[in-house]
Order: sequence, then C-alpha cells, then structure tokens
Amino acid sequence: MVAGLEDYLAYLRFPSVSADPARAGDMRDCATWLAAWLAEAGLASELAETGGPPVVIASTPRRHPRRVLLYGHYDVQPEAPAEGWTHPPFAPHVADGVVTARGATDNKGQTMALLLGLRELMAGGGPPVDVVVVIEGEEEIGSPRLPALLRERAAQLAADVALVADTSMVDPGVPSITLGLRGISVLEVTVSGPSADLHSGQYGGAVANPATALARLIAGLHDDAGRVAVPGFHDRVLPPSDAERESWAGLAYGDADLLAATGSPALAGEAGWSAIERVWARPTAEVNGLTAGHQGAGSKTIVPATATAKLSFRLVADQDPDDVAALVARHLHESCPAGVELNVRYDHGGLPYLLDAASPAVAATQRAVMRVTGRPPALVREGLSVPIVARIREVLGIDTILIGLGMPDCRAHSPDETFPVAHLALGAGICRELLAGLAAAPPA
Amino acid sequence: MVAGLEDYLAYLRFPSVSADPARAGDMRDCATWLAAWLAEAGLASELAETGGPPVVIASTPRRHPRRVLLYGHYDVQPEAPAEGWTHPPFAPHVADGVVTARGATDNKGQTMALLLGLRELMAGGGPPVDVVVVIEGEEEIGSPRLPALLRERAAQLAADVALVADTSMVDPGVPSITLGLRGISVLEVTVSGPSADLHSGQYGGAVANPATALARLIAGLHDDAGRVAVPGFHDRVLPPSDAERESWAGLAYGDADLLAATGSPALAGEAGWSAIERVWARPTAEVNGLTAGHQGAGSKTIVPATATAKLSFRLVADQDPDDVAALVARHLHESCPAGVELNVRYDHGGLPYLLDAASPAVAATQRAVMRVTGRPPALVREGLSVPIVARIREVLGIDTILIGLGMPDCRAHSPDETFPVAHLALGAGICRELLAGLAAAPPA
Repeated sequence: MVAGLEDYLAYLRFPSVSADPARAGDMRDCATWLAAWLAEAGLASELAETGGPPVVIASTPRRHPRRVLLYGHYDVQPEAPAEGWTHPPFAPHVADGVVTARGATDNKGQTMALLLGLRELMAGGGPPVDVVVVIEGEEEIGSPRLPALLRERAAQLAADVALVADTSMVDPGVPSITLGLRGISVLEVTVSGPSADLHSGQYGGAVANPATALARLIAGLHDDAGRVAVPGFHDRVLPPSDAERESWAGLAYGDADLLAATGSPALAGEAGWSAIERVWARPTAEVNGLTAGHQGAGSKTIVPATATAKLSFRLVADQDPDDVAALVARHLHESCPAGVELNVRYDHGGLPYLLDAASPAVAATQRAVMRVTGRPPALVREGLSVPIVARIREVLGIDTILIGLGMPDCRAHSPDETFPVAHLALGAGICRELLAGLAAAPPA
Repeated sequence: MVAGLEDYLAYLRFPSVSADPARAGDMRDCATWLAAWLAEAGLASELAETGGPPVVIASTPRRHPRRVLLYGHYDVQPEAPAEGWTHPPFAPHVADGVVTARGATDNKGQTMALLLGLRELMAGGGPPVDVVVVIEGEEEIGSPRLPALLRERAAQLAADVALVADTSMVDPGVPSITLGLRGISVLEVTVSGPSADLHSGQYGGAVANPATALARLIAGLHDDAGRVAVPGFHDRVLPPSDAERESWAGLAYGDADLLAATGSPALAGEAGWSAIERVWARPTAEVNGLTAGHQGAGSKTIVPATATAKLSFRLVADQDPDDVAALVARHLHESCPAGVELNVRYDHGGLPYLLDAASPAVAATQRAVMRVTGRPPALVREGLSVPIVARIREVLGIDTILIGLGMPDCRAHSPDETFPVAHLALGAGICRELLAGLAAAPPA
C-alpha cells in the first residue's frame, strides 16, 4: 500500500458537495475528519465557523522566520450526471494506479498529496518553515464566506507566501507552475424596444429590432482582427515577455492539443498570437448566452420586445474588472443604435493574477520539482480564474505558488474524475523539497 | 333591428376555431349553417371537402360576361386568453352600436357585410355580374389545403377579379383599398463551434464563439443607414410612385400613430423613408428570435456550442421569396467568420402582392365607396402578408381587390374583438355598388 493512500481514500468517501444543502452534515463530517487527521499529524487544528461549512485551519508551532500558507478545499462538485460514472463517485475505485472518484483531483487528491509531504516533515521533527493550513468547504460555489474569514483572521493566517495545488499539469508527467490566471468581468446586457412583441409585418421596418441592435452591439466588441475593440480596454494589459512566449512555444503541449480539446472546426481568435497565448495571456470578450423573441420550433414573425446577452470578459494583469465593466458599459451606450433602450448590468468581477517568473518563490519551486522529478517544471499560465488567489493577495498581501499536480485529462467537474496514485508521492515530495527551499530562499 | 344583424350574430355564435382539433364539429356546423344561409339567399351552395374543415362554395347562375370571386374565411383565432374577455367570446354582445365577439371583424363581420349586399342583390333579381363565393375554414392556420382546392376547381372558380374584405380601415370611417401586401422569406440560421459548451476561461480566445459569429452575421444584414445590405436584395424592388407617396403623406394616419401602436421609444429604420413607407413599401430584415448558451438567471461563463437566429425578410413587389432566401444564404456564407460552421435553413416563403392603382378594378372600387359614403377611400398598403391573395393570383390568374371594413382598433386576434354594427350596412352597400361597377367597367 502506497503511503497515505488509505487516508486519501477515506477523504474521498465523504460526499462533500457544497452545492447540495442536503449534504451539510457530510460537509461537517469531512471537515471534522480532516481537522482530526491534521491534529494526528501534529498540527494545532480547529474548525473555524463561518455560518456555512466550517473552514479547517491548522498550523505548526511558530518557530521559524518564515511561514507558508497552504490553501485547499474539501468541497467537491456535484456528481451529476450520476449515470456518467463507471463506479459510484463516493466509493473510490483504484485500478491500474489510478483512483476514480469525485474530488479525486479537485481538490482532495492535490491537497492530500501536499499534506502527506507535510505529515512526513512533522514526523521528522517538523518542517523548516512554519506552515498554516487553510482548507475551505465552499470553493466550488465561489468561496462566498472565505474572504471575510481571511480578513478576520489576518493575524492568525499571516504568512510570506501561499501554496496551492488546484491547477493542472500542462502535459502528463510535467508538474507545472501556473504563473498567471485571468480575471473576469461578467455583465448582462438588455436591449428594449417595443412594449410587447410586435407583428413583424404590421410594424417591421418602422422601429428598431432589439435583437438586431444587440447583435450590432456585440459585433462592435471586436475589430476585424479579433481584438477586443472597447476603447481603453487594453490600456492596462501587460504583454507576456518574449522569454515567456518562447518557453510556451517550446512546450510539448501546443495549439493542436487545445483545438482537439474544444471540438471546434478550427482555431480562431486575435491575430498575432498563438492559441495558447490567446488563452493564457490575452483578454477576451465572450458571449455566454443570447435570448430574444421566439426560440421554439417553427417560425413566429415578430419584432421581439427585448433581447438579452450574457457577456464575460476574461482579463489579464493589470486589468481591473470594475474598470473594464465601466469601459464596456460606456462603449455599449455610445454604440447603441437609435430607437432602443439599453441596460447594462455588472454582475460580478474577479481580479487577474500574475506572479513574476523571476521571483524567489518560483525559483524555489523549480528547484524542488527538479529534485523530485529530475526535470524542470513547466512555467505556464491558465486562462481561467482561481478567485481565491487574488483574494489572498488582496487580503493577506502575499503571492501564491500554484503547483499543478492534476493530469490534464483528470475530468474534474465531470463523471469519472481521476488522479494517479503516484501523484500522491510526487506532490508529497515536491511539498517537502519546496518547504525546505522556501526556508532557504526568501519568497519575496 | 338592423338588416342582417341576427344572421351575423348567429354566425358569430359558432366557436369555429380552426387551431383547436376539439372544435372540428363546430367548424363543420358553422360551414353547414353558412352554406344553408347562402342557399337561402338564392345561390347554389355546397361544402367542398378537403380533408379538413370543408370549404363553402356558392355561386350565382352563369348569366353575365364577367364574374367576381368573393373570398372570406369562417374560421377564427383561438379566444385565449379567456380572462381577457369582458363578455364570452362566442356569445356576441351588442352595445352602443358595437358587436363584441371572437371573429366580429376577422373575418365573419367583414365577410357577412359583403354577403348581405349580395343577398340584397339576389332578392332584387340577382347581381349584374356573376359571383362565386369561397369561404374557407383554415385561414387562421395558414390555409394549408386551399391552394390544392383552388387548383382542382380552377374551372368552377374561374372569375375576372377577386374581392376580399379582410384588412382594416387606415382610420375610423375611411374605407381603405389595400393595394400592396408584403411577402416574406423565413430562415433559421445556426452557427456551430465547439462540440459542447466550453469553459470560457479554459478556452475563451482560442476558438470562435458561435454567438459572437452569429451577432456579426446579423450586424451584416443592414448597412449603417438601416438598409438591408444583402447583395442583390434590392434588385427587384419596385419603389412606390411619387403619387402614391404623396397620397400616403396626406392621410390623417401618420407616423405618430404607428409609433404609438408599437410602444417603442422612437421610430427607427431605413434612411430616406417615412415610417409608413418603411412598413408599406420597403423590404426588411428582422430577427425574430435568438438562442445561445446560458439563458437562465445568473451567469455561466461558457463559449456556447451553437447559436441560432430566426430571421424573416418582408418583401415587396417584385421580390421573389425563394430568390431572396438564396441571396441571404449566400451572403451569410460569404460573411461567415472563420472557425465556425454555418447552417442556413429556408423555412418558408410567400409572395408579395401589388395591385396597380390605375387598374379599372381599383377605379370601380373607388367609385363604389364614393357612392356609399360620399368620400373617396384611402389607397393604402399593409406591411403584412395575406398569402391567399398571392395564391389566388398564382392559381386563378386574377387580381384581388382588398377592401378594408374593419376598424383599425378592432382587436382582431385579441380579446374583446369588435365590429361596428353600422359597418354591416356600409359593407353591404359597397358590395352592391362595386358589383354594379365591375359589371360596367372591365376589371383588367
């Protein structure tokens, strides 16, 4: 039996689905189990109450000048659709060195791998830096209560750098350090015209069609080269360095892999950038949904009263989501065709994240991975948002090292989520080496 | 009691809703009653079977060189919403000279008015032209079986001109001759991209967003002056004559009335034309519906797999709906952004209709209205389609005089549909005078 595998399987058996109110008891049972496990490993652990699922906080004694905050989450995505699973999602199945279960990678596997490394260090007299562990139970529903807890407990949670394993390897067997994450601005745009759907024969031509007006507004979000055309949108965009672009071009993972994952007929996007660059380092404007008029079978010849688009803008450092939302709203209002009324509602935003590739924390992580695997980690970015990383920087004032231990095809959020058993030891090893490295090299 | 009012009220009591299969018996009862009424008036009448509700056909003996086809429909729109009615929809209510009932105007009132004129002529020795009456029972569901019947019975139904009262007065008290009706081409456009909805963070920027591509295609349907921008679209558009435009400008009915009816914040449309002209004499491109991605509450940050638009193009003489559909499909394919697949499906089309204002049939109608009301009728067009008019021209080779006896606010298709009792005598008088005039002046 691999060291720690039983602990990991026990952790997976809790159906800790934060989105399901009926599982509040399972959430608490999982947190209680985890706090006990950390206490058993030698940390001072507690359940911090937030009004929702408790946050597990555990810490080593304060003995060293530096401290690392290890963040993870014990909640998982819903298992639906149940019929998609080869094995029951909360009865982890081990075969051919792979564990299949909900949360196998996201985030129980990745977190447990780091914690197993920490437990080994505890058994050997304690890690060479202080560690504080924060494992929350609401990441999959947007961490609604964690920022307040971080603020309330800022002194207790003070650290020099954070370590999070909640991203993916860019290619199998290539531990990856994610230096950048995109932020987001989410808006809903509604165009209103006639007071009710109109007969398009009786009135068509005399009044503006809200769906046409909306389409023209959306068309105006990009120029013909696929670049976002909102004035001011690019003012604060930091381009990736030439070195970064070169290193991405050298990855085994390439545009063809990205295309294959989408099932699109072809890659497309902003001129002058590879597809990987477009996802990792370029901001976007996306239509997430459109609603107007008749949507059922057949035809209904109307001028719809309203038309709505759900828009989201993925942002890169140093764009600010609130600023972007204001720029977009202004642009839409200035571009709005005559004869309709426009309402732009800013739903929510999240900050982009970027860690300097030349920072000591990154160097320490590169060395740790080298020691464990004999090869350098990939330095990548991801196109999605991990909002908690920006929150940690905002509230606690520290950077986060994002180490990806999950396989690129781990099926997080889908049925038959997997995690290789060997990645427990891999993550544990990287954690041990990294904590040692961070003790030697100041992280900032 | 006004002459014919009891007959009209009896006709209104049949709940002849063609859209409701449960009322097939009521439909047949209504047709049987109408055929008997026409026989009582002295016409040779029959129920022509089509596989659906029977068509009532009745004719005067063949005695004159010319013949008029009088078309109407005995089916009505569904009465829903039932709660919108002040009185039960099939228990006609008479008060202050107004009848309230489903079908009061559309089309039982308008048709009965003409038939009462015909009955008077029959009682006086017969009309001065031969008349064949065709009253169908599926107009409100698109007359699916009538064209075949027209073809089968072309010899029996042969006539020199058709007369239809199924349009509206442009202003109260102004009988209106509708010289033009718009045709239509209806299409459904689907843009496909990724094989499933994608996470807009993981993939956004690298592939074309089908909703964005669709919006750009829709934006390309018009130029900045609001003119349809499909190449070739205008090649066969006949502009209205200066005289026609002048006569429309002189109507009491104006753009302000049109705006008020829409509830839109302002009029808008193709530069260089009044709103009335845009509806009556200009072709349009309208979006009838949009569907893509997430449409519920809140946000879901995806690149949708597909986006669909329902489009309809209103056409004017001499545009051809099949040609227009082909031009639109070609334009969309030529304009389609890279990285998506486009499917354009032609749903159905209908021909536009235009009657020469200088034709003898129009002159005869103008004189008939003058004799009855002392004022000239308005010569107007309508923006909608009355497909049967194009079918009558196509199958029987004759023009149709469209005489509007309905009030502009008659609430056809809505609860509390009305018809003024006085319009029975008005329509009867116009019918008598018009049949006399058509006997004197050859219609073509």
